[in-house]
Order: sequence, then C-alpha cells, then structure tokens
Amino acid sequence: MNQPALNPESGFFRAKISLSYDGTNFFGWGKQSDRRTVQGEIETALKTLYRQDLETVVAGRTDAGVHASGQVIHVDLPIGDFGFDFEDLGYRLNRILSEEIRIKSAERASKDFHARFGALRRHYIYKIQDGLGIIEPVKRLDITPWYRDLDIQKMNQAAATLIGEHDFFSFARFRENSTTIRTLERFDFQRDEQGLIISNIIADAFCYNMVRSLIGTMVYIGEGRFPITWAREILEKHERPSDSLVFPARGLTFIGVEYPQDSLLANRVNQVMGLRSASNEYDGEN
Amino acid sequence: MNQPALNPESGFFRAKISLSYDGTNFFGWGKQSDRRTVQGEIETALKTLYRQDLETVVAGRTDAGVHASGQVIHVDLPIGDFGFDFEDLGYRLNRILSEEIRIKSAERASKDFHARFGALRRHYIYKIQDGLGIIEPVKRLDITPWYRDLDIQKMNQAAATLIGEHDFFSFARFRENSTTIRTLERFDFQRDEQGLIISNIIADAFCYNMVRSLIGTMVYIGEGRFPITWAREILEKHERPSDSLVFPARGLTFIGVEYPQDSLLANRVNQVMGLRSASNEYDGEN
Repeated sequence: MNQPALNPESGFFRAKISLSYDGTNFFGWGKQSDRRTVQGEIETALKTLYRQDLETVVAGRTDAGVHASGQVIHVDLPIGDFGFDFEDLGYRLNRILSEEIRIKSAERASKDFHARFGALRRHYIYKIQDGLGIIEPVKRLDITPWYRDLDIQKMNQAAATLIGEHDFFSFARFRENSTTIRTLERFDFQRDEQGLIISNIIADAFCYNMVRSLIGTMVYIGEGRFPITWAREILEKHERPSDSLVFPARGLTFIGVEYPQDSLLANRVNQVMGLRSASNEYDGEN
Repeated sequence: MNQPALNPESGFFRAKISLSYDGTNFFGWGKQSDRRTVQGEIETALKTLYRQDLETVVAGRTDAGVHASGQVIHVDLPIGDFGFDFEDLGYRLNRILSEEIRIKSAERASKDFHARFGALRRHYIYKIQDGLGIIEPVKRLDITPWYRDLDIQKMNQAAATLIGEHDFFSFARFRENSTTIRTLERFDFQRDEQGLIISNIIADAFCYNMVRSLIGTMVYIGEGRFPITWAREILEKHERPSDSLVFPARGLTFIGVEYPQDSLLANRVNQVMGLRSASNEYDGEN
C-alpha cells in the first residue's frame, strides 16, 4: 500500500467522506485486482465522476464480510469543473454505487486530516443472538447466531480484565510485524429489549482480527467452557491465538472513529507515525 | 388450490405455526413447481421430518419479494413417533430451513382453527425512506426508497378518507373474481426517530395487491402530484387501477393476524365462507 500524501499536491483538496456498507458480498475493504471490494467500488465510482484514478485512505480497514455504519475515508480530489458541485458528491456517488454502500456525508477537510493515522479511537460493535432466540430474517445480515446460551455477566467480568494498555499479541492473528501494544478503552456486552447481545469495543487502534478474537474468547467464557480468568491468561501467555477464537465477520460492524480538533490533527498524525514507526499495520484489519 | 380440510382426519392433529421470512429471494408464498417459494421450502422441510406430503394453509399470502414477521399457517400433522417431540418442531424446522425463514412457534390448535378463513383481521406495514435520506445498507431489505420528499400529513388525510367498509375494486389488481368489498380498519403513516416512514394497514382481508396499490396512491399524493381528494375519487371511480400505483414488494411486511377465541373459531370460518362464497380470493395476495 502506498504511503498516502499528507500534503495534497497543488490542484487537489482533501475530502473527508463518511459511509456505511453491508460487507456480506464484499471481499473486505482493501482493493484487490480480481475481487469485489468496498474500496474498489468507491474508487471506480470516483473515477467515473473525476475521470482519473484517485486513492482513498480508510479509518478502519474491514475484512471480508464485516460491515460499517460509521466508516471514514479521506481522498485528495482534483480542483476543477467536473459537471457537479462538491456539495452533491455524496448524492452523485450514491447514484453510481450499489445500495450495499451508502455515502452519508462528504466535506472539505484540513490538509492535515488523515482518516487513518489521525484517528484517536475506533469503535466497533458485535451482535450475537444466543440460545434458541430467533434472528428476524430481514435483520440477519449483521448478527451472528450462537446456539448455546451465553452468560453476559461472566463475559463482562472477563472483558473488564483486558481494559487498558496491553500487548495484545495473543489476540492478533498473523500479519503483525510491528508493535501489538494497544489501549482497549471499552469492552462490554449488553442485551437489548429483544434479548440480542451487543458488544461495544473501543480502542485507539486494533491488531489484525483482534476484535473478533476478543469476541470469541468472551463467548467461550460466556458459555462456560472456560473460566473468567481465561481471558487474562491468554493475554499474558503471549502466544498466537487459535483460529477458533476468531468469530464470524458477519456480526461485526465498524460504527465510528474519533478525530482530534483540526488544530491538533498534524500533531496526532506525527505522534502515531512516530510511535508506531509509520507502520501500515498500526490499525489492523478487523 | 385444494379446499383445506376443516376437520382433520383421524390420525392427524392441527398445528398452528408462526413464522417470519425475508421474501427477497422467494417467488412469494404460494408453491410453484419450478420456483423457490416460502410454502415450497416449508412443505419440503415438513416432508423431511414427517416423511409424507403435508399441505399448509397460510393466513396472508404474500407476493414475490414481500416479507413477513408475523405470518401464521396451519397444517394437519400425523400422530405418531417421528423421532422428536412436537415441542421441538420449530427448532427442527429451523435447522432444515434457510435463515431466510424462521419458525417462531408451533402449537397444537383446535380442529376448527383455520389460518386463512378464521382470521378476523390482517396487519401489514410498509416502510419508505423518502428524499435524500440514506437507507443503512444492512437494513435495506424491507425498505423502499423514494427519492422525492413526502408530506405524511397529506398522506394521512388521504388515507383517512378510505377507512371503513368499501368496495376496493379500484385498488384490486386483476385476479378478482369475487367480491372486492373489504373493511379497512387502520391506514396511517408515521415517521420514526430516523425519519423512516412507516405505514400501518389493517383490514379484515385484502384484495390482490391492494396494500401496495393503496401505498402507491398515498405516495403520489404525498409528493404533491395529486390532491388529497384523489384517493377517494379513485375508490369511487370503480375502475381497474394503473400498474404504476402498485408499489414495490420490498417495503411490504405482513406483521400479524388476529383470530377469535377458540369457542368462536368455527363460527368465524362459517361466516367468512358463507359471506365470501368460500372464495379462495377472499384474502388476496399482497
């Protein structure tokens, strides 16, 4: 992946675009020459409108099947007359894109705005229908079924033992070639009125498949297969996690990302790139 | 379609089954030899469990693409040992069926229970995202987009002029070979917190495609193409409706059906079959 331009060339301006997608029928975010990806679809749509190749940078890369309701990208757009106002960019893109991707907003951003390296924290949710509860068919796209009953009190107790700054190597599935130290800010499980389990997971950034490994660990604790202390044992063991810990993509949604105020953007980007050795793996695919 | 047995033969008992489905990838409820239908899938699953052909009768037949969250069927099941308890029938069926269909409950019913002719009233909802509002991709399966802004106050005023017992011939799309007199008990439009328009439609029964013709009429009023009085004019004109009135199946969901208490079941069935000449078209496909 190319290093994104932090200072747009003359003739371009940086845009911040928010979007949602149903990841079911995509091979994830990142473009691949021969497969349908969200990035591929968006860059093709941008090329239709701007008649040139434009490269997007995403806040939270998502793996095949993972959804987003609050994804953010930046892209450097050419200044010029392309037959529409920038204010209509979202509308124009939505007319081109499949309903599986929806642009929610597009705005001019500071030249220092960086969707990925500027992010302060990322927020995912994971939805599970446990036991014999029914998933309404029209709502099934972003919910993982788990046929055993789960005790969310146990899951919350175990999740709490992982909060804070730790080396999450044990929850990082391969591909890690830089630090796996992350700060987990929130990790809990709640039931909604229909009994659906919703987990909220917030961290500064994630390692590769870290969210789904954390969820799998908690589910095995919630069904009683392992004790509450097991999560912390895994963390401290510092071994590659078993693939069976990585829960299905279907239940996972990237719901949001937080950025500092404009005046602190450049500072944040430099801080992240310095601390993490400018690694592209700082926020791993989830 | 065969006349369903009102008195189960000896050796059978009548079961009442509630279910949901995502109609997107089905050619409607009613089975067809060469196409995937909800009834076809359910009867195939029943045959797997009971090793014989069993015929289901549905409360509200749905057209291709229409969904259900509160559909009801009845079926006469053989008494005997088929390797599982009747209490586990829903679970067994759900293991066989695609996630597009979910059995919510299965219970023993009175021999006089009739899913179709016993119904007192049927309840549909229709969901519309109007204007430039975004439909979240994972929620898109049961929402129809309409790119113009709709004035739901006008739609409610127009809908109110149709409440009551009327001849709905003008909203019945072909196939009607019996009475088109129905009693519309509820028809209104509300916006939820996200701005999504939800219409509730309740009647004793419906004519073929009546719900979607009613919705189309209201949308054309809501966008200002026709005056509020237009709905009543159509009703009184007593002409076949234009196909353009029939709104997309996608936004329509059959959410429930009401039956009388057990002691009044036989009475209701006889009343409906007498009044409607036992017509199979009493409750038309929607």
